[in-house]
Amino acid sequence: MRTVVHLVSGDEGEQETGLAIARNLLDDESGSIDDVAIVVQAGGVQSIVADGENAETVRALLDDDVAVSACSNTLEMMDMDESDLVEGVETVPEGAVEVTRLQDEGYAYLRP
Amino acid sequence: MRTVVHLVSGDEGEQETGLAIARNLLDDESGSIDDVAIVVQAGGVQSIVADGENAETVRALLDDDVAVSACSNTLEMMDMDESDLVEGVETVPEGAVEVTRLQDEGYAYLRP
Amino acid sequence: MRTVVHLVSGDEGEQETGLAIARNLLDDESGSIDDVAIVVQAGGVQSIVADGENAETVRALLDDDVAVSACSNTLEMMDMDESDLVEGVETVPEGAVEVTRLQDEGYAYLRP
Repeated sequence: MRTVVHLVSGDEGEQETGLAIARNLLDDESGSIDDVAIVVQAGGVQSIVADGENAETVRALLDDDVAVSACSNTLEMMDMDESDLVEGVETVPEGAVEVTRLQDEGYAYLRP
Repeated sequence: MRTVVHLVSGDEGEQETGLAIARNLLDDESGSIDDVAIVVQAGGVQSIVADGENAETVRALLDDDVAVSACSNTLEMMDMDESDLVEGVETVPEGAVEVTRLQDEGYAYLRP
Repeated sequence: MRTVVHLVSGDEGEQETGLAIARNLLDDESGSIDDVAIVVQAGGVQSIVADGENAETVRALLDDDVAVSACSNTLEMMDMDESDLVEGVETVPEGAVEVTRLQDEGYAYLRP
Protein backbone atom coordinates (compact mmCIF):
# COMPACT_ATOMS: atom_id res chain seq x y z
CA MET A 1 0.00 0.00 0.00
CA ARG A 2 1.10 3.56 -0.65
CA THR A 3 0.20 6.84 1.06
CA VAL A 4 0.46 10.50 0.19
CA VAL A 5 0.66 12.96 3.08
CA HIS A 6 -0.63 16.42 2.15
CA LEU A 7 1.10 19.30 3.92
CA VAL A 8 -1.14 22.23 3.04
CA SER A 9 -1.56 24.03 6.35
CA GLY A 10 0.51 26.81 7.85
CA ASP A 11 -0.18 25.38 11.31
CA GLU A 12 3.16 24.21 12.74
CA GLY A 13 1.55 21.51 14.84
CA GLU A 14 -0.17 20.03 11.80
CA GLN A 15 3.08 20.20 9.84
CA GLU A 16 4.96 18.33 12.57
CA THR A 17 2.17 15.76 12.83
CA GLY A 18 2.34 15.24 9.06
CA LEU A 19 6.09 14.66 9.09
CA ALA A 20 5.81 12.35 12.11
CA ILE A 21 3.06 10.40 10.35
CA ALA A 22 5.25 9.99 7.26
CA ARG A 23 8.01 8.63 9.50
CA ASN A 24 5.60 6.26 11.26
CA LEU A 25 4.33 4.93 7.95
CA LEU A 26 7.92 4.33 6.88
CA ASP A 27 8.80 2.55 10.12
CA ASP A 28 5.65 0.44 10.16
CA GLU A 29 6.58 -3.03 11.29
CA SER A 30 3.74 -4.78 9.50
CA GLY A 31 5.58 -4.19 6.23
CA SER A 32 2.36 -3.25 4.52
CA ILE A 33 3.47 0.23 3.43
CA ASP A 34 5.39 0.18 0.16
CA ASP A 35 5.77 3.90 -0.44
CA VAL A 36 5.21 7.24 1.24
CA ALA A 37 5.06 10.54 -0.64
CA ILE A 38 4.68 14.06 0.73
CA VAL A 39 3.11 16.87 -1.30
CA VAL A 40 3.58 20.37 0.05
CA GLN A 41 1.68 23.48 -0.93
CA ALA A 42 0.18 26.74 0.39
CA GLY A 43 1.10 27.38 4.04
CA GLY A 44 2.67 23.94 4.27
CA VAL A 45 5.76 25.16 2.43
CA GLN A 46 7.19 26.60 5.64
CA SER A 47 7.66 23.03 6.87
CA ILE A 48 10.30 22.25 4.24
CA VAL A 49 12.42 25.40 4.03
CA ALA A 50 16.17 24.78 4.22
CA ASP A 51 16.65 26.87 7.33
CA GLY A 52 13.46 25.74 9.07
CA GLU A 53 12.89 23.83 12.28
CA ASN A 54 11.95 20.64 10.46
CA ALA A 55 14.87 20.61 8.02
CA GLU A 56 16.62 17.65 9.69
CA THR A 57 13.39 15.68 9.83
CA VAL A 58 12.75 16.34 6.14
CA ARG A 59 16.32 15.40 5.23
CA ALA A 60 15.96 12.09 7.07
CA LEU A 61 12.73 11.32 5.19
CA LEU A 62 14.39 12.13 1.87
CA ASP A 63 17.31 9.88 2.83
CA ASP A 64 14.79 7.10 3.34
CA ASP A 65 13.38 7.56 -0.17
CA VAL A 66 10.27 9.54 0.67
CA ALA A 67 9.55 11.77 -2.34
CA VAL A 68 8.84 15.30 -1.15
CA SER A 69 7.21 17.50 -3.81
CA ALA A 70 6.66 21.23 -3.46
CA CYS A 71 4.10 23.21 -5.44
CA SER A 72 5.74 25.69 -7.86
CA ASN A 73 2.60 27.84 -7.90
CA THR A 74 2.98 28.31 -4.17
CA LEU A 75 6.72 29.05 -4.38
CA GLU A 76 6.10 31.70 -7.02
CA MET A 77 3.39 33.35 -4.92
CA MET A 78 5.75 33.42 -1.95
CA ASP A 79 8.73 34.71 -3.96
CA MET A 80 10.64 31.56 -3.19
CA ASP A 81 12.37 29.00 -5.33
CA GLU A 82 13.72 25.48 -5.03
CA SER A 83 16.98 26.75 -3.50
CA ASP A 84 15.05 27.93 -0.43
CA LEU A 85 13.94 24.39 0.31
CA VAL A 86 15.69 21.43 1.87
CA GLU A 87 18.01 19.94 -0.74
CA GLY A 88 16.40 16.98 -2.44
CA VAL A 89 12.86 18.35 -2.40
CA GLU A 90 11.53 18.39 -5.95
CA THR A 91 9.00 20.77 -7.41
CA VAL A 92 5.81 20.04 -9.29
CA PRO A 93 3.84 22.62 -11.27
CA GLU A 94 0.77 22.38 -8.99
CA GLY A 95 0.55 20.47 -5.73
CA ALA A 96 -3.15 19.69 -6.03
CA VAL A 97 -2.60 18.05 -9.41
CA GLU A 98 0.18 15.93 -7.89
CA VAL A 99 -2.08 14.88 -5.00
CA THR A 100 -4.77 13.96 -7.54
CA ARG A 101 -2.30 12.04 -9.69
CA LEU A 102 -1.01 10.01 -6.75
CA GLN A 103 -4.53 9.10 -5.58
CA ASP A 104 -5.37 8.17 -9.16
CA GLU A 105 -2.35 5.82 -9.06
CA GLY A 106 -3.76 4.19 -5.95
CA TYR A 107 -2.14 6.13 -3.10
CA ALA A 108 -4.25 6.62 0.02
CA TYR A 109 -4.58 10.24 1.09
CA LEU A 110 -3.82 11.57 4.52
CA ARG A 111 -4.19 15.18 5.65
CA PRO A 112 -2.72 15.83 9.12
CA MET B 1 -8.65 12.70 -13.44
CA ARG B 2 -11.21 14.31 -11.18
CA THR B 3 -10.90 15.96 -7.78
CA VAL B 4 -13.27 16.91 -5.00
CA VAL B 5 -12.24 19.77 -2.72
CA HIS B 6 -13.83 19.55 0.73
CA LEU B 7 -14.55 22.89 2.38
CA VAL B 8 -15.40 21.86 5.91
CA SER B 9 -13.46 24.31 8.04
CA GLY B 10 -14.52 27.69 9.39
CA ASP B 11 -10.93 28.91 9.02
CA GLU B 12 -10.95 31.67 6.40
CA GLY B 13 -7.39 30.94 5.30
CA GLU B 14 -8.24 27.31 4.64
CA GLN B 15 -11.38 28.34 2.76
CA GLU B 16 -9.40 30.69 0.52
CA THR B 17 -6.75 28.02 -0.05
CA GLY B 18 -9.47 25.55 -1.02
CA LEU B 19 -11.02 27.91 -3.56
CA ALA B 20 -7.59 28.80 -4.96
CA ILE B 21 -6.73 25.11 -5.28
CA ALA B 22 -9.98 24.50 -7.19
CA ARG B 23 -9.00 27.32 -9.55
CA ASN B 24 -5.47 25.95 -10.00
CA LEU B 25 -6.81 22.50 -10.79
CA LEU B 26 -9.10 24.04 -13.38
CA ASP B 27 -6.29 26.06 -14.95
CA ASP B 28 -3.83 23.18 -14.96
CA GLU B 29 -1.92 23.27 -18.19
CA SER B 30 -1.14 19.58 -18.29
CA GLY B 31 -4.77 18.96 -19.22
CA SER B 32 -4.94 16.00 -16.87
CA ILE B 33 -7.81 17.33 -14.74
CA ASP B 34 -11.21 16.55 -16.23
CA ASP B 35 -13.48 17.76 -13.46
CA VAL B 36 -13.36 19.65 -10.17
CA ALA B 37 -16.14 19.55 -7.60
CA ILE B 38 -16.45 21.41 -4.31
CA VAL B 39 -18.45 20.07 -1.38
CA VAL B 40 -19.16 22.51 1.43
CA GLN B 41 -20.34 21.72 4.92
CA ALA B 42 -20.02 22.68 8.60
CA GLY B 43 -17.96 25.86 9.08
CA GLY B 44 -17.05 25.86 5.40
CA VAL B 45 -20.46 27.23 4.48
CA GLN B 46 -19.34 30.77 5.27
CA SER B 47 -17.07 30.59 2.22
CA ILE B 48 -20.00 30.43 -0.19
CA VAL B 49 -22.55 32.90 1.21
CA ALA B 50 -23.94 35.34 -1.33
CA ASP B 51 -22.70 38.40 0.50
CA GLY B 52 -19.36 36.93 1.55
CA GLU B 53 -15.80 37.89 0.68
CA ASN B 54 -15.36 34.94 -1.67
CA ALA B 55 -18.62 35.38 -3.60
CA GLU B 56 -16.90 36.56 -6.80
CA THR B 57 -14.39 33.73 -6.64
CA VAL B 58 -17.18 31.20 -6.19
CA ARG B 59 -19.20 32.70 -9.06
CA ALA B 60 -16.18 32.44 -11.36
CA LEU B 61 -15.72 28.77 -10.45
CA LEU B 62 -19.41 28.07 -11.11
CA ASP B 63 -19.10 29.87 -14.46
CA ASP B 64 -16.30 27.47 -15.30
CA ASP B 65 -18.50 24.46 -14.58
CA VAL B 66 -17.22 23.58 -11.13
CA ALA B 67 -20.13 21.99 -9.26
CA VAL B 68 -20.41 23.51 -5.80
CA SER B 69 -22.60 21.51 -3.41
CA ALA B 70 -23.69 22.70 0.02
CA CYS B 71 -24.83 20.39 2.81
CA SER B 72 -28.52 20.86 3.65
CA ASN B 73 -27.99 19.47 7.16
CA THR B 74 -25.52 22.29 7.81
CA LEU B 75 -27.80 24.95 6.33
CA GLU B 76 -30.66 23.81 8.54
CA MET B 77 -28.50 23.89 11.67
CA MET B 78 -27.38 27.42 10.79
CA ASP B 79 -30.91 28.65 9.97
CA MET B 80 -29.88 29.30 6.40
CA ASP B 81 -31.22 28.19 3.06
CA GLU B 82 -30.11 28.05 -0.55
CA SER B 83 -31.07 31.70 -1.10
CA ASP B 84 -28.32 32.76 1.32
CA LEU B 85 -25.69 31.20 -0.92
CA VAL B 86 -24.05 32.32 -4.13
CA GLU B 87 -26.54 31.70 -6.94
CA GLY B 88 -25.77 28.47 -8.73
CA VAL B 89 -24.63 26.56 -5.65
CA GLU B 90 -26.71 23.41 -5.32
CA THR B 91 -27.63 21.61 -2.14
CA VAL B 92 -27.20 17.97 -1.23
CA PRO B 93 -28.89 16.29 1.75
CA GLU B 94 -25.57 15.55 3.52
CA GLY B 95 -22.14 16.80 2.45
CA ALA B 96 -20.26 13.81 3.82
CA VAL B 97 -22.39 11.44 1.75
CA GLU B 98 -21.64 13.53 -1.35
CA VAL B 99 -17.89 13.44 -0.62
CA THR B 100 -18.15 9.67 -0.21
CA ARG B 101 -20.15 9.29 -3.42
CA LEU B 102 -17.65 11.30 -5.45
CA GLN B 103 -14.68 9.32 -4.14
CA ASP B 104 -16.61 6.15 -4.87
CA GLU B 105 -16.95 7.40 -8.46
CA GLY B 106 -13.18 7.86 -8.64
CA TYR B 107 -12.64 11.46 -7.58
CA ALA B 108 -9.46 12.19 -5.64
CA TYR B 109 -10.04 13.95 -2.32
CA LEU B 110 -8.36 17.12 -1.24
CA ARG B 111 -8.89 18.88 2.08
CA PRO B 112 -7.24 22.34 2.24
CA MET C 1 -20.21 2.81 0.14
CA ARG C 2 -17.97 3.07 3.18
CA THR C 3 -16.25 6.05 4.79
CA VAL C 4 -13.39 6.54 7.21
CA VAL C 5 -13.40 9.73 9.29
CA HIS C 6 -9.90 10.75 10.39
CA LEU C 7 -9.74 12.51 13.77
CA VAL C 8 -6.18 13.81 13.81
CA SER C 9 -6.57 17.37 15.02
CA GLY C 10 -6.48 18.73 18.56
CA ASP C 11 -9.04 21.38 17.54
CA GLU C 12 -12.22 20.71 19.51
CA GLY C 13 -14.46 22.15 16.81
CA GLU C 14 -12.97 19.84 14.20
CA GLN C 15 -13.34 16.88 16.56
CA GLU C 16 -17.03 17.66 17.13
CA THR C 17 -17.58 18.15 13.40
CA GLY C 18 -15.95 14.78 12.74
CA LEU C 19 -18.15 12.97 15.23
CA ALA C 20 -21.26 14.74 13.90
CA ILE C 21 -20.31 13.78 10.36
CA ALA C 22 -19.93 10.14 11.40
CA ARG C 23 -23.43 10.31 12.90
CA ASN C 24 -24.87 11.95 9.77
CA LEU C 25 -23.33 9.28 7.56
CA LEU C 26 -24.88 6.63 9.80
CA ASP C 27 -28.30 8.28 9.71
CA ASP C 28 -28.24 8.92 5.97
CA GLU C 29 -31.67 8.20 4.60
CA SER C 30 -30.51 7.33 1.11
CA GLY C 31 -29.21 4.05 2.48
CA SER C 32 -26.06 4.34 0.43
CA ILE C 33 -23.64 4.22 3.36
CA ASP C 34 -22.80 0.67 4.40
CA ASP C 35 -20.11 1.34 6.98
CA VAL C 36 -18.49 4.17 8.89
CA ALA C 37 -15.14 3.88 10.65
CA ILE C 38 -13.28 6.43 12.75
CA VAL C 39 -9.51 6.45 13.10
CA VAL C 40 -8.09 8.63 15.86
CA GLN C 41 -4.51 9.77 16.27
CA ALA C 42 -2.29 12.67 17.35
CA GLY C 43 -4.30 15.52 18.89
CA GLY C 44 -7.53 13.80 17.93
CA VAL C 45 -7.18 11.39 20.85
CA GLN C 46 -8.64 13.94 23.24
CA SER C 47 -11.99 13.46 21.48
CA ILE C 48 -12.34 9.87 22.68
CA VAL C 49 -11.11 9.93 26.28
CA ALA C 50 -13.44 8.24 28.75
CA ASP C 51 -13.96 11.36 30.83
CA GLY C 52 -14.15 13.77 27.89
CA GLU C 53 -16.94 15.99 26.63
CA ASN C 54 -17.67 13.72 23.67
CA ALA C 55 -17.75 10.45 25.58
CA GLU C 56 -21.53 9.99 25.22
CA THR C 57 -21.39 10.79 21.51
CA VAL C 58 -18.60 8.27 21.01
CA ARG C 59 -20.47 5.61 23.02
CA ALA C 60 -23.56 6.11 20.86
CA LEU C 61 -21.51 5.68 17.69
CA LEU C 62 -19.92 2.49 19.07
CA ASP C 63 -23.40 1.23 19.97
CA ASP C 64 -24.36 1.72 16.33
CA ASP C 65 -21.44 -0.40 15.15
CA VAL C 66 -19.04 2.35 14.14
CA ALA C 67 -15.53 0.98 14.65
CA VAL C 68 -13.42 3.53 16.50
CA SER C 69 -9.68 2.84 16.33
CA ALA C 70 -7.06 4.72 18.32
CA CYS C 71 -3.38 4.89 17.38
CA SER C 72 -1.15 3.07 19.90
CA ASN C 73 1.86 5.16 18.89
CA THR C 74 -0.05 8.26 19.94
CA LEU C 75 -1.24 6.73 23.21
CA GLU C 76 2.33 5.78 24.12
CA MET C 77 3.61 9.27 23.36
CA MET C 78 0.88 10.73 25.57
CA ASP C 79 1.45 8.27 28.41
CA MET C 80 -2.06 6.94 27.97
CA ASP C 81 -3.48 3.50 27.37
CA GLU C 82 -6.71 1.88 26.20
CA SER C 83 -8.25 2.20 29.69
CA ASP C 84 -8.19 6.00 29.35
CA LEU C 85 -10.48 5.82 26.33
CA VAL C 86 -14.22 5.29 25.98
CA GLU C 87 -14.90 1.59 26.48
CA GLY C 88 -15.21 -0.18 23.17
CA VAL C 89 -12.59 1.86 21.34
CA GLU C 90 -9.97 -0.49 19.93
CA THR C 91 -6.32 0.25 19.33
CA VAL C 92 -4.26 -0.19 16.19
CA PRO C 93 -0.45 -0.04 16.10
CA GLU C 94 -0.39 3.10 13.89
CA GLY C 95 -3.39 5.21 12.89
CA ALA C 96 -1.96 6.26 9.55
CA VAL C 97 -1.49 2.65 8.52
CA GLU C 98 -5.11 1.94 9.46
CA VAL C 99 -6.32 4.93 7.42
CA THR C 100 -4.26 3.66 4.49
CA ARG C 101 -5.58 0.12 4.88
CA LEU C 102 -9.20 1.26 4.93
CA GLN C 103 -8.78 3.41 1.81
CA ASP C 104 -7.02 0.48 0.16
CA GLU C 105 -10.14 -1.59 0.95
CA GLY C 106 -12.29 1.03 -0.77
CA TYR C 107 -13.31 3.37 2.04
CA ALA C 108 -13.67 7.04 1.12
CA TYR C 109 -11.63 9.39 3.32
CA LEU C 110 -12.97 12.35 5.15
CA ARG C 111 -10.96 14.74 7.29
CA PRO C 112 -13.13 17.21 9.27
